[in-house]
Amino acid sequence: MISSVDNPTVKAIAKLRQKKYRDKEKKFVVEGEHIIEAAREAGCLEAIYTVLDATPFDNATRVSHHVMKKMTGAKHVAPMIGVCQLRFDDLVHDRVLLLEHIQDPGNMGTLLRSALAFGFKTVVLDRAVDLTNPKVIRATQGALFALSFVFMDAASFNDAYSDHTLIATLPKGDPIDTLKTVRGPLALMLGNEGSGLSESTLNRADYTVSIPTEGVESLNVGVAGSILMHYVRH
Amino acid sequence: MISSVDNPTVKAIAKLRQKKYRDKEKKFVVEGEHIIEAAREAGCLEAIYTVLDATPFDNATRVSHHVMKKMTGAKHVAPMIGVCQLRFDDLVHDRVLLLEHIQDPGNMGTLLRSALAFGFKTVVLDRAVDLTNPKVIRATQGALFALSFVFMDAASFNDAYSDHTLIATLPKGDPIDTLKTVRGPLALMLGNEGSGLSESTLNRADYTVSIPTEGVESLNVGVAGSILMHYVRH
Repeated sequence: MISSVDNPTVKAIAKLRQKKYRDKEKKFVVEGEHIIEAAREAGCLEAIYTVLDATPFDNATRVSHHVMKKMTGAKHVAPMIGVCQLRFDDLVHDRVLLLEHIQDPGNMGTLLRSALAFGFKTVVLDRAVDLTNPKVIRATQGALFALSFVFMDAASFNDAYSDHTLIATLPKGDPIDTLKTVRGPLALMLGNEGSGLSESTLNRADYTVSIPTEGVESLNVGVAGSILMHYVRH
Repeated sequence: MISSVDNPTVKAIAKLRQKKYRDKEKKFVVEGEHIIEAAREAGCLEAIYTVLDATPFDNATRVSHHVMKKMTGAKHVAPMIGVCQLRFDDLVHDRVLLLEHIQDPGNMGTLLRSALAFGFKTVVLDRAVDLTNPKVIRATQGALFALSFVFMDAASFNDAYSDHTLIATLPKGDPIDTLKTVRGPLALMLGNEGSGLSESTLNRADYTVSIPTEGVESLNVGVAGSILMHYVRH
């Protein structure tokens, strides 16, 4: 049992609340049995700390309430936390979700959860919100551990993986029915919440489609992306 | 120009930051030109206050920065705010979204935005998160002013509007293709983020469907609801 907040491990984990240390150490902390289990299954879990006498995990280290609060910085005492690493295996699957400058952690988390649900197992990120942001992690519900992440922009992706059909989404595009004939590898591209996809990315697109709506200027990007991933999943 | 934070109007608007006063006064404050315009178009706008010399609205009252901060309680100075009322016209349209115990403001806002987008113009609410919560309002992007709200549970709705086909969504249900033959008025029912629809509501359903997924336990409720509204919109 660790009961000293001056323990070097405790101090190191507490530092992971700051993005600069998460970036440096390539580690981050998750809360909740469901997400810890998802990290463990994916081989992304490094350690577990708990204030409980028993957990479903056999390698959990017992810590005091005081130490748990120090590690998480939260007023409440988390029953258990996991220290994780993301896999950056650069695997490019046949179904790719390409996100350009998605800024909202909730949208990012929702999109990652839907990406896994609909078989888009590679996510290409260009100027994305930090994936280890706690709000992103919570919204993914553990999905982020089962995905492959690649950091590049649409043009570089198109140059490197030219066999992937590029589908752009925007408020005024062709009907989504035009995607019915699309076969083979593809990348669905979604743009920033405010400004959408950049001009240079739109110029690369093989298809530019939109979801028909009424009464609103646009759909939430997480919703639009999920409807399209569901639509083209087969 | 109002420059005194002791002005009775300023004090009354500042109080609307608390839910109990919003409930009592049936008023709430929105920020942002886009949402203020949506409220105005829907006839829900009562007043506008601004720190700007000119706004797109001709009836805005000029206030000092100090007064604006007092009214919104925010550290930043909002350029303008609108004081609004929701319409509770109890109109039940042919396309109804019935939400049971949706708790997350972001999910609620996303669902309302999608409901308007896909022509579900009546939203029936049973134990919902407060609609005038600022996070809900922001996520709706103004859609909440164009919708009709009815407060009742699924059983009461079913008794009162028995011509509406009830469609329940749950993680393990029939394929959504079974909805292809559904015609006429319908209500799409979505349940709480953690526990889903209640047993008594499921027993009322004419259809219980799910969206096929892999690798995740469920979809985000805002995503699942939006995919289904999009699917059955015609």
